[in-house]
Amino acid sequence: MINILLNGCNGKMGKVVTECTKSFKDLSIVAGIDKSGESLSTYPVYTSIDQCNEQIDAIIDFSRPDALNDLMSYSIKKNAPIVLCSTGFSDDQLKYIDDCSKKIAIFKSANMSIGINVLNALLKKASPFLYENFDIEIIEKHHNQKIDAPSGTALLLANSIKDSLNSETEFIYGRDSIKKREKKEIGIHAIRGGNIVGDHEVIFAGSGEVLELTHKAISRDVFAHGALKASQFIVGKAPKLYNMDDMINLNNI
Amino acid sequence: MINILLNGCNGKMGKVVTECTKSFKDLSIVAGIDKSGESLSTYPVYTSIDQCNEQIDAIIDFSRPDALNDLMSYSIKKNAPIVLCSTGFSDDQLKYIDDCSKKIAIFKSANMSIGINVLNALLKKASPFLYENFDIEIIEKHHNQKIDAPSGTALLLANSIKDSLNSETEFIYGRDSIKKREKKEIGIHAIRGGNIVGDHEVIFAGSGEVLELTHKAISRDVFAHGALKASQFIVGKAPKLYNMDDMINLNNI
Amino acid sequence: MINILLNGCNGKMGKVVTECTKSFKDLSIVAGIDKSGESLSTYPVYTSIDQCNEQIDAIIDFSRPDALNDLMSYSIKKNAPIVLCSTGFSDDQLKYIDDCSKKIAIFKSANMSIGINVLNALLKKASPFLYENFDIEIIEKHHNQKIDAPSGTALLLANSIKDSLNSETEFIYGRDSIKKREKKEIGIHAIRGGNIVGDHEVIFAGSGEVLELTHKAISRDVFAHGALKASQFIVGKAPKLYNMDDMINLNNI
Amino acid sequence: MINILLNGCNGKMGKVVTECTKSFKDLSIVAGIDKSGESLSTYPVYTSIDQCNEQIDAIIDFSRPDALNDLMSYSIKKNAPIVLCSTGFSDDQLKYIDDCSKKIAIFKSANMSIGINVLNALLKKASPFLYENFDIEIIEKHHNQKIDAPSGTALLLANSIKDSLNSETEFIYGRDSIKKREKKEIGIHAIRGGNIVGDHEVIFAGSGEVLELTHKAISRDVFAHGALKASQFIVGKAPKLYNMDDMINLNNI
Repeated sequence: MINILLNGCNGKMGKVVTECTKSFKDLSIVAGIDKSGESLSTYPVYTSIDQCNEQIDAIIDFSRPDALNDLMSYSIKKNAPIVLCSTGFSDDQLKYIDDCSKKIAIFKSANMSIGINVLNALLKKASPFLYENFDIEIIEKHHNQKIDAPSGTALLLANSIKDSLNSETEFIYGRDSIKKREKKEIGIHAIRGGNIVGDHEVIFAGSGEVLELTHKAISRDVFAHGALKASQFIVGKAPKLYNMDDMINLNNI
Repeated sequence: MINILLNGCNGKMGKVVTECTKSFKDLSIVAGIDKSGESLSTYPVYTSIDQCNEQIDAIIDFSRPDALNDLMSYSIKKNAPIVLCSTGFSDDQLKYIDDCSKKIAIFKSANMSIGINVLNALLKKASPFLYENFDIEIIEKHHNQKIDAPSGTALLLANSIKDSLNSETEFIYGRDSIKKREKKEIGIHAIRGGNIVGDHEVIFAGSGEVLELTHKAISRDVFAHGALKASQFIVGKAPKLYNMDDMINLNNI
Repeated sequence: MINILLNGCNGKMGKVVTECTKSFKDLSIVAGIDKSGESLSTYPVYTSIDQCNEQIDAIIDFSRPDALNDLMSYSIKKNAPIVLCSTGFSDDQLKYIDDCSKKIAIFKSANMSIGINVLNALLKKASPFLYENFDIEIIEKHHNQKIDAPSGTALLLANSIKDSLNSETEFIYGRDSIKKREKKEIGIHAIRGGNIVGDHEVIFAGSGEVLELTHKAISRDVFAHGALKASQFIVGKAPKLYNMDDMINLNNI
Repeated sequence: MINILLNGCNGKMGKVVTECTKSFKDLSIVAGIDKSGESLSTYPVYTSIDQCNEQIDAIIDFSRPDALNDLMSYSIKKNAPIVLCSTGFSDDQLKYIDDCSKKIAIFKSANMSIGINVLNALLKKASPFLYENFDIEIIEKHHNQKIDAPSGTALLLANSIKDSLNSETEFIYGRDSIKKREKKEIGIHAIRGGNIVGDHEVIFAGSGEVLELTHKAISRDVFAHGALKASQFIVGKAPKLYNMDDMINLNNI
């Protein structure tokens, strides 16, 4: 049984992680940290991480960047590896995380979804092989309240494709002209509407055939699930900064 | 049995119509017109329409605008209604077609696909009802040799939606900014790649649900098929300029 | 402003309705009924409907069949029309609902999603027109805990199609044989996996083209949304048993 | 420039290969073999392979099994590697092909589409990683004249997945019951309608997310294209029986 300390346990994602943990037989949340201190589930909730004296094997963090210092000190002190799911760290903080990873195993990813990261790995494999004979386009769909377009994840996928190719590529974000597609173009199309959670579709269109790799997020569960899988992965690992590529190594199967 | 004269019988679409006719039990091509005069199928081919003395019930035209005058004179003289599938007529020619339609039934459409026209009819029905609670976006996909973006058919569908609404709408052709979607936006996204024949997808994204109406062209058969259905429709009709909405009247079923 | 009494306010769907109401400017929940009596939102919660003395314009019910009698008596006494979203009523209860609808407007539907009902209306329109030249197949996708296959909604759509046609049809639920498709077949395919909320896709496959009408449920919001729209619809209506077809009349637009 | 001898050049696929070769700058068909002996393109056509004295670098065969012996003798005599795209060989013939591959490089595949084979390679990579947390289902769509269901390609993909897993799996071909999905099930769903060329979709449905890998055949071009790529691959290779996995080695990129 892996005992988990959940930082940010009463937040939106904290609640999802709490619920999602129930489907993992070898994982148990033994304590939570939240400003309110209110216990909403079966585990005790503390307002400060230093109050926690439970025996823990790993920490999952879904809070805010300003919790970083206390979190890292505690992680090192207790020799408990940590899964960092907060985003928006400053450059100084990123450097600090890097430094801490010499003392404790840290897992960090901008997108905790297993599926998106498997998709990304498959794209890196397939794109160099297909590119000569297939044109590549990306469609992403998100809810109408999303501010940025295209999505960070669409750009992540596009850059993975770009980096895997030995050819000049150019991202374009829509078409409205009388002009043939150039080979180097990778169209990135941002659909916005309703409350779509987040779909990403990569299209390889060739001569007489089309290959499509699509990821659809159904709910925030997917990010909780990825964080919990990461906690299973990180327990017992040597100090280092790990990411999804370490966990999802399609070559090592 | 409906006897058909096929103008432009040896062209790309003429050949497809010849092949496709075989699946219609009540249709028979009895003569063709083509500059070459070469007979590639079972029916005689003439270089000039005036040489044709076969008994005909309808004319299908898949040729070029410059054939118009001879075609119309013949159609009126023989009292044979005509299905006009050529495109690119001048304003003068369009007026001439209109004049001729007082003497003979003429069927004319920019897109002979039954499916696209049924989709268009459904959009006119559904859009006014859905618009208040659903955001509308259009994705179209075509081969990498297509010059115009977005496609004429995507614009046809978008304008049908726009005209069906009592609200301000604005077509946009891609997104690359830090800005929320405005309600009035109708995104039209042109994907280009490989030799995709032509897909059109209209997305209604609402609160907790998405409705998608999609048309996929598989081959040029679809335009031949539509022309042959139109020839069945037009035989026996009074002089008038008919279009797909006359043939596909979803209210009259 | 329409004042709503929400029966079953602390249940799974009750909570969703409470949240979803916030996006309707003309709707306000003024009281809730729940066994616990605990107030989880801004409105008072009673353990029995008779305790509620708030001025109400409509009732939304997401509870259980055994609440029916008290609910109906109250609805009639207060002259407040009701939206019945509970399912599983006995034949006797259905008859009782029918009787009550002579005294008060009642809205009742097995599927409160607007989108599914619009899809259903479009299918009734399009199927008779398309059937001669298009083959019809249905794919539905649901989570791996769903017990029945195919889904009730897939059968609802299939029966709407069947009833709209003047032809013999036969539902089949998969294919594993050496045998050509017969024209009368309507394939209904049940995909099960993960926690897919619920997708329904109707395919019209023709000669050279395919038309697809697809509905995807993203979350339970969609049922709350439909119930709230129904409450807007039912206020001020004469006593009668109404359903989604009354609300979504695509011909009356 | 690679000079190609095309066996079966006037058949359905032979014509497609002839047309498709034009888009390859380094490939040229210098002679064809066909029973009719009629030259339909720019290269000479012989009725018997022994009449061909052109200098050739590779042979592409899209004919029938009974041409095998002459073909192999010629291939070995001229030291020209061969791409075998005919299907339906007897066990004796398969053994003979194997024997010949000790003397000359032979490329043989049941499905010449690059895309399907890349999809297959990706499935072998991803399935073992995903299986624990994702349910797998396959949907294939073909025209209404197809006799076998499910398609050979769907079974090819399903078996690749099955072989990549260390778990018990069970193929099922539809669902019509009151029974939850079992983990070991891999649903294979055969949609039939119109003249769909051939779509294959593999669904990985997980907790909060879905990953879909889809291949859509647009036209027979895809098989011609694969054969021509194979001819590029096979020139200069040592005697051996090669298949698509040798050509599409995603690990060796």
